[in-house]
Amino acid sequence: MTDFAATKAMFHLPEGVIYLDGNSLGPLPRAATETVGKMMQDEWGEMLITGWNKAGWMAKSTIMGDRIGRLIGAEPGHVVMGDTLSIKVYQAVASALDLNPSRRVVLSDNGNFPTDLYMADGLLRSLGDDYELRVVDPEAVADNLTDDVAVLMLTEVDYRTGRMHDMKALTEQAQAKGIMTVWDLAHSAGAVPVDLAGCNADFAIGCTYKYLNGGPGAPAFIYVSPRHIDQVRPALSGWLGHESPFAFDLDYRPGAGIERMRVGTPPVLQLTALETALDIWDMADMETARAKSIELCDLFISEVEAQCPELTLASPREGSQRGSQVSFRFHEGYAAMQAIIARGVIGDFRAPDIMRFGFTPLYIDEADVRAAVAIMADVMTNKLWDKPEYKVRSKVT
Amino acid sequence: MTDFAATKAMFHLPEGVIYLDGNSLGPLPRAATETVGKMMQDEWGEMLITGWNKAGWMAKSTIMGDRIGRLIGAEPGHVVMGDTLSIKVYQAVASALDLNPSRRVVLSDNGNFPTDLYMADGLLRSLGDDYELRVVDPEAVADNLTDDVAVLMLTEVDYRTGRMHDMKALTEQAQAKGIMTVWDLAHSAGAVPVDLAGCNADFAIGCTYKYLNGGPGAPAFIYVSPRHIDQVRPALSGWLGHESPFAFDLDYRPGAGIERMRVGTPPVLQLTALETALDIWDMADMETARAKSIELCDLFISEVEAQCPELTLASPREGSQRGSQVSFRFHEGYAAMQAIIARGVIGDFRAPDIMRFGFTPLYIDEADVRAAVAIMADVMTNKLWDKPEYKVRSKVT
Repeated sequence: MTDFAATKAMFHLPEGVIYLDGNSLGPLPRAATETVGKMMQDEWGEMLITGWNKAGWMAKSTIMGDRIGRLIGAEPGHVVMGDTLSIKVYQAVASALDLNPSRRVVLSDNGNFPTDLYMADGLLRSLGDDYELRVVDPEAVADNLTDDVAVLMLTEVDYRTGRMHDMKALTEQAQAKGIMTVWDLAHSAGAVPVDLAGCNADFAIGCTYKYLNGGPGAPAFIYVSPRHIDQVRPALSGWLGHESPFAFDLDYRPGAGIERMRVGTPPVLQLTALETALDIWDMADMETARAKSIELCDLFISEVEAQCPELTLASPREGSQRGSQVSFRFHEGYAAMQAIIARGVIGDFRAPDIMRFGFTPLYIDEADVRAAVAIMADVMTNKLWDKPEYKVRSKVT
Repeated sequence: MTDFAATKAMFHLPEGVIYLDGNSLGPLPRAATETVGKMMQDEWGEMLITGWNKAGWMAKSTIMGDRIGRLIGAEPGHVVMGDTLSIKVYQAVASALDLNPSRRVVLSDNGNFPTDLYMADGLLRSLGDDYELRVVDPEAVADNLTDDVAVLMLTEVDYRTGRMHDMKALTEQAQAKGIMTVWDLAHSAGAVPVDLAGCNADFAIGCTYKYLNGGPGAPAFIYVSPRHIDQVRPALSGWLGHESPFAFDLDYRPGAGIERMRVGTPPVLQLTALETALDIWDMADMETARAKSIELCDLFISEVEAQCPELTLASPREGSQRGSQVSFRFHEGYAAMQAIIARGVIGDFRAPDIMRFGFTPLYIDEADVRAAVAIMADVMTNKLWDKPEYKVRSKVT
């Protein structure tokens, strides 16, 4: 069981704000400013270069990988932190292709987050003209698991609508056709229970600034199945993935196990903030968090549908088919979201017409949901979104 | 002119320590703990997701790129921050190869930092069997600029000995043979004056945790010449390098200019620490810093040679041929370095027998050099290094 009042108290949540965008950037853990400050002063400041050993900076990438591994059902010792999710996509797809050398197609869907498609496209262009990135509708993935596909690359939870793929079933179907799988858990880790080992997943990747609350630019993670890791020869063969980084050999030899997926020097300030965020996850369990998330999302859907008939549900109605977010379509969605944000309810907008709201039981409760819908109803009923200042697009939303 | 007493006062330097390892990890700028804390509390904490615009997080990568650009002679708008140096090596070499499509060889030297060789090797393996990484002695580079070489990839300042390549001359010779150049400035940026534009350099990369004092895991930077940037199609085609990242298009279109070399979400905590460190560089100018660095290095060499005859100079004796570090060889160099560190003089060791000392005029002065040599002389004369505890190798030094 999880005491959600206790976890909520661990976050700094600004006065007058209901934050329904933790699916984009989680809020500040109250203790993080102090732990990062302490790391800077006592470790960087006092230990200087010796902090890599003495303060354990070098070991954080795998220790924290395992802490995240527990939330996503990974075998211990098979998750490592580093880089950004985009880089981890590249690493995973390159390795998966390498393990399936007779095939040339990467299959994905048009609900995938664009950077996954961009990174795969860039990789395939380098590999040669005979490689192909094949992008189909999410519903058509199963029917497109053909014998020429090397790698199935999917994001489990659609970033716009929250629609979930069935990871276990698709992995099984893919593997039956000799296809390697790469699962992006950006909107899964800390949002829904994931069982990588139980699904027999091959590769998985994810970021830590959404539901894991690691802060802006927190590092990504990568999982490689114990079945494959010893066969992986990393395309991004950086020195920290070397068997013996501090021997400074001229030739690359991959490190033991998941260590080989490390590339360069880890971002210790970001890792320290994330560490504090994971302490809060230690107070929670994923099963009760999931049950609570479905409750909150269901409540939000029924209240919005009752009070804001202008909005059309874009997410699956059935909780088990959805991640931890709810999206509605509205033709003036961008302006409406700006108007709602101006009233202190923070969600976000995804083109062309999606208003997206994340539900994060660690710090959002029923009272927040009801208060948010009351504000949305006021904005919609009184067309408060119909002002020029809400229609000017900013670079990032 | 630079007031080095004033810059020294801007750093936190631990009691009883003389820090001669700023070439590996720069010390903590006194103000950084507060600026990072403020960013966490006032921006992440209060603005949440809106910090990407409101607090200018998204723009930091190029704004700070330009601040570093001033230290390395880059044209404004041609340097961007992100990722690690290893990733930036991959990006630069991949792009340089792409611009020289009829050739298959990357030329480097065995004084290059291993991760540069590892990353190039990984890239060339993905590209195909006809690609070759050719590694020669540093002195033999000029003679190996042959017609089959696509890219010359060098680190300007040798990480072990401080020996410098002649960037201007080698770039000119390479370009005369139709070869693209990639310069790694890891031990140059903030250490020696660099004039990328004046050298007609093609690509350059570097890290910011050494002489730029950005902290453990601070992000890297990449420079692409204005001549090339519009022709570069990034191999690591991440969403933040897209022309319009927040349009969420399915197809990748490279962003304007240097923005296309961005990949994923930038590490805002690390960038904030680096920002504060660059404020100190704003108090200095590179020419006087270089003059002072040569003075300090010359003093160190003459004092060590007078007082520690057991040590053999491994760096060029002539200041203009050296970066901002001095190395000595000693058969028990590892143990000797541990013994010296135990006495509060922090340098580092590089296999097989190199004792390395960085001189960083922003916070190291003549008195520090003399005090450090006095301790070294005591350790050497009295063989204080000859203890079992100094001979146990740690993972990172």
